[in-house]
Amino acid sequence: MSALTIWTYDWVPAGPRGFVRDLRLRWACEEAGLTYAVRTIPFDGRETNHLAQQPFGQVPFLKDEELEIFESGAGLLHLARKSDKLMPRDPVGAAETMQWTIAALNSIEMATVPWWFLKITGSENEGLTGWVGKRLDQLERVLSEREWLVAGRFTVADLLMADVLRISQVRSFGNRPATEAYVTRATDRASFKKARADQIGDFEAAEQKRAGERSN
Amino acid sequence: MSALTIWTYDWVPAGPRGFVRDLRLRWACEEAGLTYAVRTIPFDGRETNHLAQQPFGQVPFLKDEELEIFESGAGLLHLARKSDKLMPRDPVGAAETMQWTIAALNSIEMATVPWWFLKITGSENEGLTGWVGKRLDQLERVLSEREWLVAGRFTVADLLMADVLRISQVRSFGNRPATEAYVTRATDRASFKKARADQIGDFEAAEQKRAGERSN
Repeated sequence: MSALTIWTYDWVPAGPRGFVRDLRLRWACEEAGLTYAVRTIPFDGRETNHLAQQPFGQVPFLKDEELEIFESGAGLLHLARKSDKLMPRDPVGAAETMQWTIAALNSIEMATVPWWFLKITGSENEGLTGWVGKRLDQLERVLSEREWLVAGRFTVADLLMADVLRISQVRSFGNRPATEAYVTRATDRASFKKARADQIGDFEAAEQKRAGERSN
Repeated sequence: MSALTIWTYDWVPAGPRGFVRDLRLRWACEEAGLTYAVRTIPFDGRETNHLAQQPFGQVPFLKDEELEIFESGAGLLHLARKSDKLMPRDPVGAAETMQWTIAALNSIEMATVPWWFLKITGSENEGLTGWVGKRLDQLERVLSEREWLVAGRFTVADLLMADVLRISQVRSFGNRPATEAYVTRATDRASFKKARADQIGDFEAAEQKRAGERSN
């Protein structure tokens, strides 16, 4: 068995397939050529059945020998130390990769996730929408001047930023061509396509198994 | 001049004094005994006057020799590598410190900041309030079983988590005695008190200077 194990749910409804955040860790392992296994915990009872591994009842969490790490962002920074394909090794490149990884989590996703949550529940808020628009404009300015966020090459910061933008469907929110091209560039990578296909395949196999059990 | 420089605004209105996020970096330096300087950029024009240093027009950013790092979370993780007072050096302790630092940013603050924003703008949302309540309950469960998040001792993860809880005034949101005691424990530290007093003192001095200029 591989030393690296990514834990996710054993099944999810159709909507989140291709979006559950174990995809981020799969993508990073594929990008870096790291061998990994995927294991699952039950989706049913997820609020309380794995609090020892993930105190907020979510996935993914990552196991690497004696280490157990929850938070997809922390898992990504851990994997980044294993391969310079995910993070440059020079001090400036490493610091900027960490900085943009945190920016994806705390400057962009902190705005986009609540915006998306209010949107899908039919209670959009003007102030929050304005906040998201402002942050996306600021990011558009950055991305109009560079292909990747750090060191002129793809890093784990791009992996996370592109996934944050993809998940919250902010691409449909206004016309930001540099951001659109950036997300397309990132998700055109073979590593993303394999990670996404693997996740969807696993969940669809679980769906068929469930259907088979119900029909017995 | 010190190798470490924390950049913040030259002035802020009374409300945010004691809450601007350069306080996190000051606190970490005080905790670790790191020598640092504080320098300022103009608050007026902040949306665009330092985009080269902070693409979202915010503070703080940290300068350490040739490194320039924005995002308070990234600055904290950078400082944590300089002192084991901020992060244990063993692999498990280091990984768990990073994990809880990211959790503060992406599991707690991602809920509390939008909740607080909607609250102060008079447009509270039931779904978002429920989300914050759930996350705080999950954190209360963790904190009811341990004094500090990682390794039985104060780390930069506690510094950040306590500040996240303090800033969004979630202490007033429901009865969570373990969380309340945790925030009190963290903010009773001399390092926090000095960082907060220094920030408030700097901003008050700037206020008096402004008032003097206006009266001339």
